[in-house]
Amino acid sequence: MHPIITAFARSPDRGQGLARDMRVRWALEETEQPYDVRLVSFKEMKQPAHLALHPFGQIPTYEEGGLVLFESGAIVLHIATHHPGLLPEDRDARERAIGWLFAALNTVEPPIFELQNAVLLERDKPWSDERLPLVKDRVRDRLKQLAARLGDTEWLDGGFSAGDLMMASVLLRLRRSSILDEFANLAAYVARAEARPAYNRAFAAQYAVFKGAA
Amino acid sequence: MHPIITAFARSPDRGQGLARDMRVRWALEETEQPYDVRLVSFKEMKQPAHLALHPFGQIPTYEEGGLVLFESGAIVLHIATHHPGLLPEDRDARERAIGWLFAALNTVEPPIFELQNAVLLERDKPWSDERLPLVKDRVRDRLKQLAARLGDTEWLDGGFSAGDLMMASVLLRLRRSSILDEFANLAAYVARAEARPAYNRAFAAQYAVFKGAA
Repeated sequence: MHPIITAFARSPDRGQGLARDMRVRWALEETEQPYDVRLVSFKEMKQPAHLALHPFGQIPTYEEGGLVLFESGAIVLHIATHHPGLLPEDRDARERAIGWLFAALNTVEPPIFELQNAVLLERDKPWSDERLPLVKDRVRDRLKQLAARLGDTEWLDGGFSAGDLMMASVLLRLRRSSILDEFANLAAYVARAEARPAYNRAFAAQYAVFKGAA
Repeated sequence: MHPIITAFARSPDRGQGLARDMRVRWALEETEQPYDVRLVSFKEMKQPAHLALHPFGQIPTYEEGGLVLFESGAIVLHIATHHPGLLPEDRDARERAIGWLFAALNTVEPPIFELQNAVLLERDKPWSDERLPLVKDRVRDRLKQLAARLGDTEWLDGGFSAGDLMMASVLLRLRRSSILDEFANLAAYVARAEARPAYNRAFAAQYAVFKGAA
């Protein structure tokens, strides 16, 4: 029995790879774990059967034997902990990689979430044009610090890890804006991540759902 | 040698317990681990010595032997993994508790972060009065789902865990608003968390810094 993940039956981003099942698919591909996918509609996501798996009515979820997990961070950490390929052997390096996973989700993503809300939910509001630059600057503040730490290294701390997988996934949400291109080393970092064979296999699998539904 | 954490030399919230070293102090108190504190000024936080520990120039950091961690989520997970008291014995229950830790940081906190930005950074903007209700509704959407899952249970999944510690810490950021009081079971949940002896020891330790600096 393979683990089962849930994903959107219809892509909200027209197959751009931003839905969060990508993070989980990518981790499964990096660790060479086969998996099955159950597609859920936007309506099904808010119904009791799915809410029992995911209290916030979102995707992805992860079912493996009796274990049910939600939150892409928790699922990626689960996969990285139980299979080689996404965490270093050394104990301290392992904890630092997990630290970067949290940094991606709780330090870098929140201002990007705010920017996405400004663009998707408040674009028609009278304050949109004046406010957007403020929100973008809050994203830039974080990226400046991240770019300074990354410098000219390939990944955030030694070899590619679950921390890089999550950081690149979060930065990819900036694809629609040009902010990422202001930081050449971060743009190159994301490009390196996107060039990984495991990323491409994950992307293709998610894209196939979009094409199938279209 | 005890682990060393960093905290603000001057409280930005006048000792209300919201600075993120509270999350780490609380975890250390729950697991009965002694620790030392190094206070840093807002100026020191942005200088190379501190940036070497925390690339985003914030607190808390955690130093233990050769290990340096940043991100309160990563530090709390480290403490919970290495000392009994914050994670269940059962393997699946343990992973679910870690799932709640991620849910606190990446699903519940981002809209609260957005609300805090609206209040602290945009209060004097012309759009503030009209926009604030929208931002509050985004927080309410999450709290409704969380309240539905919590129901009338004491903690999120069995006994008190690192997931509850983080969820309560995140919800405490709503203290200045009345939103939490709209959800009686969540308000009671936070009150139960605040009543824990370990929380009170952590709060007193952080408050002593505020009083000492004042």
